[in-house]
Amino acid sequence: MPPSIAVIAPGAMGSAIAARLVEHGCKVLTSLEGRSRATQARAAASGMSAANDSEIVNADIILSIVPPGEAVALAEQLATTINRNRKKPVVVDCNAVNVETIRRIQDVVLSSGARLVDAAIIGLPPKPGTKGPAFYVSGEAATDIAVLGQLGLDVRVIDGPIGAASALKMSYAGINKGLTGLGAAMVLAATRAGAADALRDELALSLPHVQARLANALPDMLPKAYRWVAEMREIAGFLGEDHPAAQIYEGFAALFEHIAADVQGEGADAAQLVAFAESCKPN
Amino acid sequence: MPPSIAVIAPGAMGSAIAARLVEHGCKVLTSLEGRSRATQARAAASGMSAANDSEIVNADIILSIVPPGEAVALAEQLATTINRNRKKPVVVDCNAVNVETIRRIQDVVLSSGARLVDAAIIGLPPKPGTKGPAFYVSGEAATDIAVLGQLGLDVRVIDGPIGAASALKMSYAGINKGLTGLGAAMVLAATRAGAADALRDELALSLPHVQARLANALPDMLPKAYRWVAEMREIAGFLGEDHPAAQIYEGFAALFEHIAADVQGEGADAAQLVAFAESCKPN
Repeated sequence: MPPSIAVIAPGAMGSAIAARLVEHGCKVLTSLEGRSRATQARAAASGMSAANDSEIVNADIILSIVPPGEAVALAEQLATTINRNRKKPVVVDCNAVNVETIRRIQDVVLSSGARLVDAAIIGLPPKPGTKGPAFYVSGEAATDIAVLGQLGLDVRVIDGPIGAASALKMSYAGINKGLTGLGAAMVLAATRAGAADALRDELALSLPHVQARLANALPDMLPKAYRWVAEMREIAGFLGEDHPAAQIYEGFAALFEHIAADVQGEGADAAQLVAFAESCKPN
Repeated sequence: MPPSIAVIAPGAMGSAIAARLVEHGCKVLTSLEGRSRATQARAAASGMSAANDSEIVNADIILSIVPPGEAVALAEQLATTINRNRKKPVVVDCNAVNVETIRRIQDVVLSSGARLVDAAIIGLPPKPGTKGPAFYVSGEAATDIAVLGQLGLDVRVIDGPIGAASALKMSYAGINKGLTGLGAAMVLAATRAGAADALRDELALSLPHVQARLANALPDMLPKAYRWVAEMREIAGFLGEDHPAAQIYEGFAALFEHIAADVQGEGADAAQLVAFAESCKPN
């Protein structure tokens, strides 16, 4: 019999992961208390079942998939209920938090008697017919959830402690989203100075894959820029306040904040980035 | 008859450019006053002829190829001598300076009666049998040096004012060297957290060209890191102090300073970067 699984919360990623698990015969619980009608509808469409806190902590596996700022509070809330419960689930923190944060979450979860797995989801929410996203896991309990690999998730065990999966998530995002940030900053600056066409041409000649990546990534980033602000700050925290490179990611946070405001407002920068991306496409 | 050309200074890039021009039948002058024996030997090996200041300003074209911090001083020194001269050369500033700096150089050069071309050299110094580096030029006088295209240089005219070529150089380096900086920061952080192998594997799967680029760029960067510090600060200046992205490049300057110190010292970070690069290579 497949394990019982709870997924909190039923956001875009959480509900898509839940839908895949349901497809593979799992019962997937979630908490809908205080959630909007849209969220309730999304959860229902994914085949999730509404459950209260004590039902949720009776699941075999609990996946925590929330915005990074909410990860510790959710762990504390779960731990409080698990503490009173005889059955102890495996809690899987899938959030884009830095290593220090996942260690705090570890203390909270272990003190309740539950086990913790550090997980990093890399890629877009699962869609029918695709294999992704990658679901990296680390920590002693990682092998306890290997079953998820037979339930439609692309589970990859990292041979490392709690913190290794989070470090992977931070460092991958730091390169991937960082590259988009570099491209955005430099395309806007080159455009202002009348050098955007020359930049596009030189990239096409000497860094063609970077050019192709930016042509897709720049427009894709625009609606997500507001969300990337917090993620860049997590990466700065991952490096540590005193690390010389932390400033790079504080700068990216400021840049994405600026772009998010532009997207909400006049859209002048957004238009320049889209124009550059369009100009990269072969005729 | 080919134009007479002066190249200042006979560094690695300047002397290699000079050698190519000499190969194509040009007489190339340079200033060797106060230069080391090694520099004098390099200039001689490139076929350059030693000349004094008044001979140099009698050249048709003067290429300024110096560290960014020396570009304004060289322009001022040239302008002083040109001012007293009847013949007015075209001065080509090839340095990695920001747009504000090239505009200061423009004021200095034009006041002497000479013309100015803004140039950006992208790529490694020319080697026998190769075409590069790319030699982008902008400004009204850019067409006056089109002849260099027949003398072995890969001249590409940007249809833009003084500042466009410098902006290209800044924005291209901001992406290219910035990507190396992102990779260095994140590989070091992932290594510390036990996630370097997972990072390498995920990059190989989802960003294979970025992985391949970093495998070459990280070790290549180590001996140059000390030089990149100033270049990153020029890019921050190119963005402008108040620009949200300027902080990104101040952060890169701090990171490369840290790496340069490590290379001079214990080499612990350098060893981790080399190990990551090695591990990316197919067996």
